[in-house]
Amino acid sequence: MNQKGLFSKRKPPLGSVPGTLSIDEESPFPRIRLIEFDSNSLREEIVDDLTGLQSVVLEKEKIHWIDVQGLGDESTIRKLGDIFSLHPLALEDITNVPQIPKVEEYDNCVFLCLPMLRMEDNNLISEQVSLFLGETFVLTFQERYGDVLDPVRNRIRRKAQIRQMNNDYTAYAIVDTIVDNYFPVLQNLGNELENLEDQLVETMAKESLKELYFIKHRLAHLKRLLWPTREAIGRIARDGSLYFGSRTMLYFRDVYDHVMQSIDMLDLSRDLASELMSLYLSSTSNRLNEIMKVLTIISTIFIPLSFIASLYGMNFHFMPELALKWAYPVVLVIMGVVASIMLFLVHKKGWFRK
Amino acid sequence: MNQKGLFSKRKPPLGSVPGTLSIDEESPFPRIRLIEFDSNSLREEIVDDLTGLQSVVLEKEKIHWIDVQGLGDESTIRKLGDIFSLHPLALEDITNVPQIPKVEEYDNCVFLCLPMLRMEDNNLISEQVSLFLGETFVLTFQERYGDVLDPVRNRIRRKAQIRQMNNDYTAYAIVDTIVDNYFPVLQNLGNELENLEDQLVETMAKESLKELYFIKHRLAHLKRLLWPTREAIGRIARDGSLYFGSRTMLYFRDVYDHVMQSIDMLDLSRDLASELMSLYLSSTSNRLNEIMKVLTIISTIFIPLSFIASLYGMNFHFMPELALKWAYPVVLVIMGVVASIMLFLVHKKGWFRK
Amino acid sequence: MNQKGLFSKRKPPLGSVPGTLSIDEESPFPRIRLIEFDSNSLREEIVDDLTGLQSVVLEKEKIHWIDVQGLGDESTIRKLGDIFSLHPLALEDITNVPQIPKVEEYDNCVFLCLPMLRMEDNNLISEQVSLFLGETFVLTFQERYGDVLDPVRNRIRRKAQIRQMNNDYTAYAIVDTIVDNYFPVLQNLGNELENLEDQLVETMAKESLKELYFIKHRLAHLKRLLWPTREAIGRIARDGSLYFGSRTMLYFRDVYDHVMQSIDMLDLSRDLASELMSLYLSSTSNRLNEIMKVLTIISTIFIPLSFIASLYGMNFHFMPELALKWAYPVVLVIMGVVASIMLFLVHKKGWFRK
Amino acid sequence: MNQKGLFSKRKPPLGSVPGTLSIDEESPFPRIRLIEFDSNSLREEIVDDLTGLQSVVLEKEKIHWIDVQGLGDESTIRKLGDIFSLHPLALEDITNVPQIPKVEEYDNCVFLCLPMLRMEDNNLISEQVSLFLGETFVLTFQERYGDVLDPVRNRIRRKAQIRQMNNDYTAYAIVDTIVDNYFPVLQNLGNELENLEDQLVETMAKESLKELYFIKHRLAHLKRLLWPTREAIGRIARDGSLYFGSRTMLYFRDVYDHVMQSIDMLDLSRDLASELMSLYLSSTSNRLNEIMKVLTIISTIFIPLSFIASLYGMNFHFMPELALKWAYPVVLVIMGVVASIMLFLVHKKGWFRK
Amino acid sequence: MNQKGLFSKRKPPLGSVPGTLSIDEESPFPRIRLIEFDSNSLREEIVDDLTGLQSVVLEKEKIHWIDVQGLGDESTIRKLGDIFSLHPLALEDITNVPQIPKVEEYDNCVFLCLPMLRMEDNNLISEQVSLFLGETFVLTFQERYGDVLDPVRNRIRRKAQIRQMNNDYTAYAIVDTIVDNYFPVLQNLGNELENLEDQLVETMAKESLKELYFIKHRLAHLKRLLWPTREAIGRIARDGSLYFGSRTMLYFRDVYDHVMQSIDMLDLSRDLASELMSLYLSSTSNRLNEIMKVLTIISTIFIPLSFIASLYGMNFHFMPELALKWAYPVVLVIMGVVASIMLFLVHKKGWFRK
Repeated sequence: MNQKGLFSKRKPPLGSVPGTLSIDEESPFPRIRLIEFDSNSLREEIVDDLTGLQSVVLEKEKIHWIDVQGLGDESTIRKLGDIFSLHPLALEDITNVPQIPKVEEYDNCVFLCLPMLRMEDNNLISEQVSLFLGETFVLTFQERYGDVLDPVRNRIRRKAQIRQMNNDYTAYAIVDTIVDNYFPVLQNLGNELENLEDQLVETMAKESLKELYFIKHRLAHLKRLLWPTREAIGRIARDGSLYFGSRTMLYFRDVYDHVMQSIDMLDLSRDLASELMSLYLSSTSNRLNEIMKVLTIISTIFIPLSFIASLYGMNFHFMPELALKWAYPVVLVIMGVVASIMLFLVHKKGWFRK
Repeated sequence: MNQKGLFSKRKPPLGSVPGTLSIDEESPFPRIRLIEFDSNSLREEIVDDLTGLQSVVLEKEKIHWIDVQGLGDESTIRKLGDIFSLHPLALEDITNVPQIPKVEEYDNCVFLCLPMLRMEDNNLISEQVSLFLGETFVLTFQERYGDVLDPVRNRIRRKAQIRQMNNDYTAYAIVDTIVDNYFPVLQNLGNELENLEDQLVETMAKESLKELYFIKHRLAHLKRLLWPTREAIGRIARDGSLYFGSRTMLYFRDVYDHVMQSIDMLDLSRDLASELMSLYLSSTSNRLNEIMKVLTIISTIFIPLSFIASLYGMNFHFMPELALKWAYPVVLVIMGVVASIMLFLVHKKGWFRK
Repeated sequence: MNQKGLFSKRKPPLGSVPGTLSIDEESPFPRIRLIEFDSNSLREEIVDDLTGLQSVVLEKEKIHWIDVQGLGDESTIRKLGDIFSLHPLALEDITNVPQIPKVEEYDNCVFLCLPMLRMEDNNLISEQVSLFLGETFVLTFQERYGDVLDPVRNRIRRKAQIRQMNNDYTAYAIVDTIVDNYFPVLQNLGNELENLEDQLVETMAKESLKELYFIKHRLAHLKRLLWPTREAIGRIARDGSLYFGSRTMLYFRDVYDHVMQSIDMLDLSRDLASELMSLYLSSTSNRLNEIMKVLTIISTIFIPLSFIASLYGMNFHFMPELALKWAYPVVLVIMGVVASIMLFLVHKKGWFRK
Repeated sequence: MNQKGLFSKRKPPLGSVPGTLSIDEESPFPRIRLIEFDSNSLREEIVDDLTGLQSVVLEKEKIHWIDVQGLGDESTIRKLGDIFSLHPLALEDITNVPQIPKVEEYDNCVFLCLPMLRMEDNNLISEQVSLFLGETFVLTFQERYGDVLDPVRNRIRRKAQIRQMNNDYTAYAIVDTIVDNYFPVLQNLGNELENLEDQLVETMAKESLKELYFIKHRLAHLKRLLWPTREAIGRIARDGSLYFGSRTMLYFRDVYDHVMQSIDMLDLSRDLASELMSLYLSSTSNRLNEIMKVLTIISTIFIPLSFIASLYGMNFHFMPELALKWAYPVVLVIMGVVASIMLFLVHKKGWFRK
Repeated sequence: MNQKGLFSKRKPPLGSVPGTLSIDEESPFPRIRLIEFDSNSLREEIVDDLTGLQSVVLEKEKIHWIDVQGLGDESTIRKLGDIFSLHPLALEDITNVPQIPKVEEYDNCVFLCLPMLRMEDNNLISEQVSLFLGETFVLTFQERYGDVLDPVRNRIRRKAQIRQMNNDYTAYAIVDTIVDNYFPVLQNLGNELENLEDQLVETMAKESLKELYFIKHRLAHLKRLLWPTREAIGRIARDGSLYFGSRTMLYFRDVYDHVMQSIDMLDLSRDLASELMSLYLSSTSNRLNEIMKVLTIISTIFIPLSFIASLYGMNFHFMPELALKWAYPVVLVIMGVVASIMLFLVHKKGWFRK
């Protein structure tokens, strides 16, 4: 969600056969990590040879979480599609990112795609996670190396509750962790906004205005991600599916609440940003008023005085006043009076009040 | 709802197991108050030893209102969760405040959480009240010491109608009192706005603008609290539950009306605030016009006059006019004529009208 | 709906028992008028002794319209509540004004509350009318003396159709008359707006801006009254009730249309008001442009001229030009040329076009 | 839909018995035209004697289109109401114009009222057409003489398809023709807007601003007419009725599409108008910036120069520079340098770029 | 969708019989291309003689895609209508473009019309494609020569999957390709916007403002096209029809997702455009502030100094200061002090900060 490329989207060449995969050349080569566990045993390995996976899937006593990071190789993804019997259109949705978050039922699995947000070196990284929940496996695809799911892996290693549950609970744990990571991102944006508040009103820096603009833009983008996420998770919480048991549905109700809270926070930020913009505008015109008041006060006082002075700077031969001894002090007094009247009028208009 | 920390929210560390409690270290140690009553007897006590509570709950003839103020100790809250068999996710909702107001059914109780608003030393205090209504108990959790519920306690002490009714009526009395306390808070904000009205239009003080901004912000926040509150209470009024009898549902219809009125008042304030902002903007540009008119009138009159004066201040040796006896008065008359024409033109443009 | 007190609302002290009446001390003492009629007979009287009413209610052959104006005495209202067996919460809704317009079914009657609007000495008076329709009676409560219902009374006196119909038709006649009185009020506001239109654009008076602001505010308030009124009357027109016969429902469909037309008129006014605000803003900045153009034209022409003049007002001993005989006329010509160029440039920029 | 009288509406005196007709005194005397036809015969006549109509209605073999133009005589309308057994409330809707467009079912006919728009001498004329479709008749009421329905009359005269169909098709033809006439009116407004576009941005004339305001206002008004028209026609297309056959319903689906297209066009115009307003505002402040730049550039250059000149216009006896021979050219050079620096600074700020 | 003619729409003369075709004289003469294929055979030809088509349609073993480009000849279109038994109202919808995108069921076919967008020489071309799907044929009408469908034709030629499927898949392939072509158009607009961003904020060029206005306008227009397209395609994906099999419905779900993504992109652009407008406004007033600050600083410093200078330029005979030897340097010092004070005050107001 870097600013540039907001309008870029991975699409296969126009007019391709449906199901054509569009491989992003900058996406890294897929790195596949298998975690196989039940309440007693645990095996973690990096899978190099895909053919081994075939047998793994058939083993029904254990839960398998196959996590694929990087979408940079079409044949790997197609092979995974074959092994797990994924529908070609679903396969297309994995690589042609970003998809609008959604949940879809296929014959042998549920497909859920949703955004994963995280801060990395103060940049907001947004990538798509595609999750397939089948009878014996949880299969996740991520666009890049690195994610926010280590806590889930640690819980599996720690023999936590997750080891006792079915694989839909593992899927829940992954989704829950992804959704929980929306908060720090939103808080970060909210805090940036609150910082801007002071800058904007006090210094009215042009840079702050631009930053506000970028934040508003990012918020609009996040809104587009979170609303359909809410929709998708709400659908699981409400309707369940063949692969999400009713017990896990209750947990998804909780995830749904968290997404709602994210959206709530997002809306608050959006309101705040709008208010800031209008506050900025008001402050600017307020400031302009102040500037113009200064100019007008100075001009109002000195322009008439200068006129009087230049009047007696004229070189006419017959200006009888010039010869009068008390003329100069009288003119000075007149100038003082004029200035006082002007000051008084300005004061009466209330321009000295801030 | 102090300005800062608008984006803070109590959340357990990212990736925690669901049901992890996030204890706010600034929250005071839980103070538990038990009120046990039926139509004849009344017992109030501060509970120090939680083990005693166990037996209390089993006593079905009496109504027990256990009120917990302060969420600062995890073990206490966990023990209460055990005693009343609260679901881990509900327990999480108590401490990870603020939750979006909601009502949820669990097997052995109904869980309702809603915001409690009150003014304290001219500050708006907003905390979450979590209410559990079970077969024999009403259990409330508050974030801090002090609340708005003394009138309910007094009605219990006074042997009022509440002593004759079931415990769902007690729950209703608590909710009703919390909702009734929204009005003074909203009236307070509304009055602040009405005060701002004069300040903004008359003095156009920058401080008023900022205050308006803060009020708008607070109103946006309250809107986020009250809409889901309406939803939650509407659900009870409409659908009831195992623990809310149909007779109490009628009362909840009344509470629903009150929340609606709060929202109505809130919307009116929000409209008023928006209008004020645009009135302010219009007034500012109106004021700028006035300032610029003054500057322009002064300049329009004196700049040409000054030019004439400086013309005859030139030191050319051969300026025949200078030697003429009547030149000076003629120039003065010309200046008068020029000034009059300028004044007339300005007058014709209607700039002297306010 | 006077401006002040927009946020005031009659509420009993916080924490009161539900059903507590909040008596407005400024509300006049209740004046009760009974109109008893069937197609043949008619009796009108001011009721001083409430006990007499009891028997009246039991008389099933006649229609009784009991109209209570003024809510200033709690005991009277409670007694009426007893006589007509009104629910305590409904009784509360009568006195704790303003309620949001609504219709509610009780066991022995239908309760309808809606706003009555009228102009009095150019002020908009808004009060709540609470109407109970029972088997044998129509009971109305008004906040003040005086109303818009005389035409209904006259139709009863005139032996019009209303005398042949059931008491639900009387209720309809009252509601219809109240709703019909929305039109003149809205027309009045609409006309005020149309008058403002000229003032705002022509004179840009600050007072007009404030008036616009107040009208917008009043329109926002009326919107809040009329939308729920539409809802309430729509519910009767759609669902009827035990006490509104199907024939009267058809008439309520007509009343519903009238409320819709009121809302339509109101929305048109609101649009007009918004447009006016933005027209005003545009006009203001347009005007500012004109003012600044004048200032800039004057300055652009005279500032260079003044500079030239002051140049030759310098007192250097060796300024050879000064001694030249034709220097003065040449400088005058130069000044003329400079002024002409400036005027031409200004003209080319199109600043002389209005 | 002339600007004035936007808030006028024909209503009977307040408090009238329901069904009271409100006769507009400016409405012309009703002119009744009967077209009686079947596939073979055709009779057109102006009906002066209403009693003759009675028998006409009973003739079931032919289609009768009775077209009433002008609503200026109550007794005529009441007599027509008797002849065709129209419900008093429907009769009221004919005369108390404008009604919100709607369709209503009565026992013996369907009542449809919708707006007829046309341009006459460049003015937008909006009047209400009330159409009753009974078993043997199509009865239309118009507010004024003259309409857009001649094409329908010609099709009847031409023995077109309409002569073969039932009377619901005649009703459809009338409605379709009325709706088709919305397009030229909307195109006219759209074109006015596009013309305004150039005027506003180029000349920023105040008159254009006012015209824009009036167009926006008219668009808001049209929106209020077209949306309920869509609703009414959609209802016929969806639900049909006793008098609209299923075959005609298909045609009404087409009319519905046309109304949708009108609304689409209207919305586009409304968007365009809003954009124009904001474009105007931006252009105005852009222009102001340009004006102020000119003023500031002129002032920035000449004010310091004038100061230097006036410095050496001082008359102190001991100003050694004055006597220096090369002082004058040096000062001129200094002035040139100062002016160049100022110009350079201004240039660096980018003020010379447009 | 060239700017001009936004409000033009092909309509037959007002009051025409329904089903009248409105032929655009600028539309080219229809060019008909037949592609006949099954999994084994393929025949492509340009059809000159329409009578030959009759037999083609009856051949049920093959799929026929008849593509008509150009609507410039009424008789050709009517003949095609006869051959394929198209309903007169559908025929009207083909020529009276643009229709609002929609899907309609007729007895012997499904009618779908939707917009086809493409960039040609940097212009956005928008034309309507009308698609009829019957038992044995796919019939498409386009307004002009040239389209985006060559990839579909190539897939047919390449013996791709499309050759194995039914004709509803061919219809899907056409619709999918049209919808996929929305992306580059929207990306193009989005990129234009992003380019404008820099121009607007940096140079504040008036031309950029106008361009922004045109882009906003085009986006509003596209929104009007895409929303009903979404509706129409959603209806096929949801409800299917006699001619769209359930297997193809799944593919339409995918097309629906693509339309949703287009709309998403469009909304993002619209947001961006609105933000840009308000950013522009803020920047303008920011810039104005800067300009005025410069003017005011210059004036504030030099106007008092000039006054002092002109004071001593007065020609009074008795101005004792003039004769003092140190008067001139003292005045210079005073001027320096005044200028410093002014600079200090200005600095304190923070005007030198950007």
